[in-house]
Order: sequence, then C-alpha cells, then structure tokens
Amino acid sequence: MEAEIITIGDELLIGQVVDTNSAWIAHKLNLIGIKIHRIISISDKKEEIIKALDESGKRVDLIILTGGLGPTKDDITKNTLCEYFNTKLIVSEIVIDDIRSFLEKRNVDFNNSNKRQAEVPENCKVIRNYNGTAPGMWFSSGNKTFISLPGVPYEMKSMMDNEVIQRLKASFPSNHIIHKTIYTQGIAESILSEKLAEWEEGLPDKGIKLAYLPQPGIVRLRLSTEGEDLNSLKKLIENEILSLNQIIPDYIFGYDNEKLEEIIGNLLKKHSGTVSVAESCTGGNIARLITSVPGCSDYFKGSAVAYSNEIKVNILNVSRDVLVNHGAVSKEVVEEMARSAMKIFDTDFSVATSGVAGPSGGTKEKPVGSVWIAVSSKKSTISEFFSFGDDRERNITRASVTALNMLRKMIIKSI
Amino acid sequence: MEAEIITIGDELLIGQVVDTNSAWIAHKLNLIGIKIHRIISISDKKEEIIKALDESGKRVDLIILTGGLGPTKDDITKNTLCEYFNTKLIVSEIVIDDIRSFLEKRNVDFNNSNKRQAEVPENCKVIRNYNGTAPGMWFSSGNKTFISLPGVPYEMKSMMDNEVIQRLKASFPSNHIIHKTIYTQGIAESILSEKLAEWEEGLPDKGIKLAYLPQPGIVRLRLSTEGEDLNSLKKLIENEILSLNQIIPDYIFGYDNEKLEEIIGNLLKKHSGTVSVAESCTGGNIARLITSVPGCSDYFKGSAVAYSNEIKVNILNVSRDVLVNHGAVSKEVVEEMARSAMKIFDTDFSVATSGVAGPSGGTKEKPVGSVWIAVSSKKSTISEFFSFGDDRERNITRASVTALNMLRKMIIKSI
Repeated sequence: MEAEIITIGDELLIGQVVDTNSAWIAHKLNLIGIKIHRIISISDKKEEIIKALDESGKRVDLIILTGGLGPTKDDITKNTLCEYFNTKLIVSEIVIDDIRSFLEKRNVDFNNSNKRQAEVPENCKVIRNYNGTAPGMWFSSGNKTFISLPGVPYEMKSMMDNEVIQRLKASFPSNHIIHKTIYTQGIAESILSEKLAEWEEGLPDKGIKLAYLPQPGIVRLRLSTEGEDLNSLKKLIENEILSLNQIIPDYIFGYDNEKLEEIIGNLLKKHSGTVSVAESCTGGNIARLITSVPGCSDYFKGSAVAYSNEIKVNILNVSRDVLVNHGAVSKEVVEEMARSAMKIFDTDFSVATSGVAGPSGGTKEKPVGSVWIAVSSKKSTISEFFSFGDDRERNITRASVTALNMLRKMIIKSI
Repeated sequence: MEAEIITIGDELLIGQVVDTNSAWIAHKLNLIGIKIHRIISISDKKEEIIKALDESGKRVDLIILTGGLGPTKDDITKNTLCEYFNTKLIVSEIVIDDIRSFLEKRNVDFNNSNKRQAEVPENCKVIRNYNGTAPGMWFSSGNKTFISLPGVPYEMKSMMDNEVIQRLKASFPSNHIIHKTIYTQGIAESILSEKLAEWEEGLPDKGIKLAYLPQPGIVRLRLSTEGEDLNSLKKLIENEILSLNQIIPDYIFGYDNEKLEEIIGNLLKKHSGTVSVAESCTGGNIARLITSVPGCSDYFKGSAVAYSNEIKVNILNVSRDVLVNHGAVSKEVVEEMARSAMKIFDTDFSVATSGVAGPSGGTKEKPVGSVWIAVSSKKSTISEFFSFGDDRERNITRASVTALNMLRKMIIKSI
C-alpha cells in the first residue's frame, strides 16, 4: 500500500519551520508496510489544500495531512475538509471534554477559540488528542482514507502512536518492508564506497537496495528489501551485515536508530562504569548528548565546561606551565583535562576536548577546525588530533561524535 | 516570481532523513522576492523525477532540485536530467580541477567514482562546489530555469550563497516580500491569541497576514506583507511591532532569526559582562546553546554540569544539609548552585537548573517536569519553579529556554 503526506502551512514554504513531521510519519508507516510515494508541503490556502488532496487521492489510497489545526485564526484546514467532503461542522462532545480536561490540568480557562476547536466535520471519526486542544480527524471516502492531524509534532506523534497506527494496521495489512541502517564513523564516504564496491555489486541480484547517507562525522549505510516472509527478509539482511563486519570492522559502531550516546550508556550500565567529561571547544555538547539518554544518571556524573584558560587551571587543575608551553589546543592539555575530570568527578572513564571551533581564534599553526580529543580509563589515557573544517556548528558536532566514538572504543577495550 | 523545490531521495520517504534543505532554500529565495509554491519530496527513481519536473515546470518558472548527486552508486539525478533535456554527459575540466583540489587538501586520492562526478549534462552551466565533489547544474529551458544541487546541506548552502542567489537576483528582479517574526516566551498560544484578538482583527485590511508558530517554550508570531515599495512595507510592519510591544511587553524577547543565546551574547558583550552556568537537569544544554554563538569566549567562562548530589556538593559547594533537608530539586539548592557558579567561575552573572527531566525520577511531590531555575547577578539571586510536562526532550528544551530568558531579564535589570 502507498501513502502520501501533505504538510500544510505557510511557515514551511517561507522556510521558517523545518518539516520534521513527514520523516517521523514516514518512518512509522514504513514499519507497518506502508510506503510513502511523495511528501508535499503546501500553503494554508483553501484552493491549494483541495488541489493537493485531489492529486494525492489519484495517486495513492492513504493521505495523511498535518498542520492547520491550531487554536488561532490562521488555521483553515478544518473548513476546507468540510468543503472537500461536502459536509458541515458539528460540535463534538468528546472533544469538548478532552479540551476541558487538558486545560484544567494546566489551570487555563476554556475560551471561545477552544470552543471552535471542538467542532469537526460531520462525516469524520475523531482522533483524540490528549496533549493539545486540536482533535485529529479520520475520513473514509470510497476506497481512500484521509487522516488530518495537528502540526505540533508532540501532539501529532502521540496521536499516531496511540490510535492511528493501530487502526491503519487493522485496516490495511501489507507486504513487509525491511530497512537496516549501519552507522560508520571515521571514514569518508568516497573511501567507504571504494572499499565496499565489490560487495555492493552483488546486492541488486539479491533484491537489496543500498544507500549512503552522510552526516557530520558519520556515514550511514542503509540496506532495504521487501517481501512477504518477514523471517527470510531478516535473514537476508543479517547475512549482509556479517559480510560488512568483515570488510569494515573498525568503522561500524551501531545499527538502526541506535545513537552513540545510547550505545555508550548501555555499555556503562552493563559493566557498572561511570563517565565524566571535560569540554572546551564542544562547549557542553558532549554532556548534552550523554544526558539526552533517559536513565543516564546511573553512569554520568558531570561535566566541566572550561571555556577559558583560568577555568582549565582552577577547576580542571591543568598546570599553568603546560598551558603556556603547549597552548590550550594541545595533546598535553587535553590529556590533563581528561585525567583531571576522572579524578574530580571520581569516574571510571572520561573524555575531553580542546580545539578551535571557529570562526575566529585560528592561527597559522592551529587553524580553525584543529581539535585535540583525549579519553581516559583507570589504566590509560589516549589522545588524537583532528583537522575538521571551517564551519563552527559542524566542527562542534564532528568533535562531539568523534569523542563519543573514542570513548566507546576505550570502554570496550577496558572491559 | 514563484518557485518549487524538489528534494530527491528514498531516505526522505522512508523517514530516515529530515529534509532541512527545503526550509533553508525557501528562506533564502524569499529574501530575494521569490515565493515557494510547493515543496515536494520524491524517490530517486527516474520516472518519479521526470514526473515531478514536468508538473512543477507547469506550475512555476523556477525549479530547484536537491539530492541524488553524491559519489556513490545510489545517485541517479544527473542521468535523469540528461534524458529530460535530451542531451548527453560530458566531462567538465573545471569540475575535474575542483574535485582534485578538494581531495588534495584532505589527502584523499582521486578515484574512479570521483571521475564520474566530473561529468555533467552538455547543456548545463556548472555551479562550482568548493566543499564537496558533486557539481551543481543550472539549466535554462524556454522561460523555465532548473537548478540541481547536491543534497548534503553544507555543500548545497555554500553553493546557494556563493553563486545561485546572486545569479537569480540578476535574472529575476521581483516584488518585495517582508516577513517579521516576533518571539515570545512564557505565555501559552491560546492565551496569547485571546490577548491579541482585537489587534489581529485589523491586520487583513492593512494587507498583513499573521501566523502563530509554537515551539517548546516559545511562541513565535509572524507578520507577512508584500508590495513594490520596500520602505513603506517596512514602515507598515514596524507600526504593528510598536502596537504589539504595548499589548504584550513582558513576553517579547526578540525578532526574526535572533536567538535567545545571541541576544544574551550581545548584551554581555556590550556591557562587558560575563556569565557561567550550573546545570543539573539541563545536562549541558544551556552551555551548548551559549557556546553555539561565535565569539562567546568573550563572555562565557564555563559550566559545571553536576548530575549527581556528590558533584553538587564537591564542585558546586552546595551544603549537604541543604541537599538533605530540601532535596536536589528545590529553591535552596538551585540558588546555591547559581551563587556558587558565579564564585567559582568568577563571573558577573550565572544561571542554574535543577529538576526532574524524566521519564523516571519523579515523585508524588516532585513529578516529572518539575524544574527550579535560578539566576544570579552581583546584587541578587532570584529563582522560580516550573511544571513542564512528561517528555524528557521537551523538558530539557523548555527548561533551557526559560533559564536563558530569565538570564536575559536579569542582565537587562542589572545594567
């Protein structure tokens, strides 16, 4: 079965808001065997919405809309759907109750704009929204299904998870689609593709599709296949993963939606290890990544973000001599930072960064993008130098990802 | 003039990658008076690309494609464009030189897949890529313009900035479109819309469009208008900004692409102030936001991410009695954290957070989402309690944004 996603809102077309809903919805639909044919972003004008509904309805059987359902006056989707399905708005008592109880919890009064939100087209089934005031709507029209959801990601996601996915699964049993993503770190896309060329040649005959997906510091490989028997599909992909692990064992760090920080968290939890961070150029980003993982307080003690030399001396006990002789961006300083973090935070491991994120602060010897990274365990400290690039944001991301991967390797080596 | 953006790649349709390119391109085109009519994401199949080119070419005069131009074999766009324009691939010597010098800088050898990248359709003008190996292409066909760019955001962006925007401006002088975004913090969308209802009524008659755009912790208001005379458009919008500042003076913190962390940076630079952070539940995110701003080393000294009670005691000198008597998530602890950060890092201001980000760690008294935030200056420390929600990521974001806004207000009060 194929679907299209239509996201509605001028904010998307003027570039004020990035459409993150479509990717999220596409991923969820894929998991239940529904393929996305197109994603379309349009303005919140009635005629544009109707045109897009017509066109998508000709191409596919399932159309999911997001956006244009908020409490404010710039929302037009609901009225347009009424016109499209030739029906009228009626007040839904269920929605009134849901909105009231949502607002009560937040000590907010029920007002006129909320009242308008409780109106829905007469021919739809309401999809309940427990995280906001705009209800979702499910329309069946001939053999086509149209689903309209609010554009606020948080609300849309829980409505998909709580209700829409289950109903779709029941209504449209499908072929299986399997994707497996392999994460590599520390190797450029073009070198990776040369290393994998021979293996790649054999994939199409097995019905497997390969894609390369680079992002700062990481290249992802995605294998995709489709068929009726889930187990044989899984086995097919597993065999290719085994081959890949023989060709590029040093570069693979994880699979599918595993994040480096989650892999590290699981390793530390399993072996009751703890970790701390000392950050200069990454400015708190490594700590943020580690603490984005629920339950991280089991293994993460803390981070010292030491942005000035004084703080490196006063808080991280880096010796003033070493700082003067070697400079802040040096093997000596970053290793002292790592060792010191372990001591201060009393942890089994630590990771430290010192570099020039840019755009200013570069010198001829240490241009923008120069970064030293160190990792420590109770047994040893190792460090490495990297030349990233010119872009501040990318440098911070690449340094953080590289540091986390060095930490991962150090943990594995130590246990 | 109207344009459409077509982003190509199965990774978009299976939800593996969020399309951030379209929003960025849309914003840039808007600035030179080009409106985006639709954004379309399609798979990297020849027939889909040709269909999308045909359809967009019927609706608008400018079509921008991104994606499908990497060094690996999953890239099909270039061959499809050849077929679409009924031409053949030729080797571009300029592109060969660009790729060679790009690879040389990175100590990577020129290989066969790079050679294929130097081929372009005979009828296009090359758009040079100094940050990668895939060239861009500019096609003129009748009165339609088609521009194809690589999908890697970093490469696409610099090609747009260095070459495409200038050429578009010269080729298509346009009407002016003005957007002004007003950022508010600390007020819910539905309450805001009630407060603004009367003012909002008057906007359509003046040719102004208003949109509400909520994100965690922030509600943005966007005013849009269009016309020939740039100055009168600007004046029109400025008048509405003055009105808004009278209706909701306490909630507005910035405009357009200003970020809270940049506003704080500018305030501190202007008044030679310095700041430090003590973070518990925000886990480094406040430091990361502050250090995302170039030049922040002028005013940011550092942050102590104290994730455990021991660290709050040992590094931030929070007294053990206060921790035991009041708990880590308390007014007393967060105020001590803030005062202590100011002392340790020797700064003029500081901000501190302590809360339950979730999903675990909540109690009946302090459920998930409970957060204390304190800000300190040399003169005073103030703190406030917030009940955010159930979602870890949103709680971290809302706590960070709220903390930065409290810091902004404290700095303004103190100078």
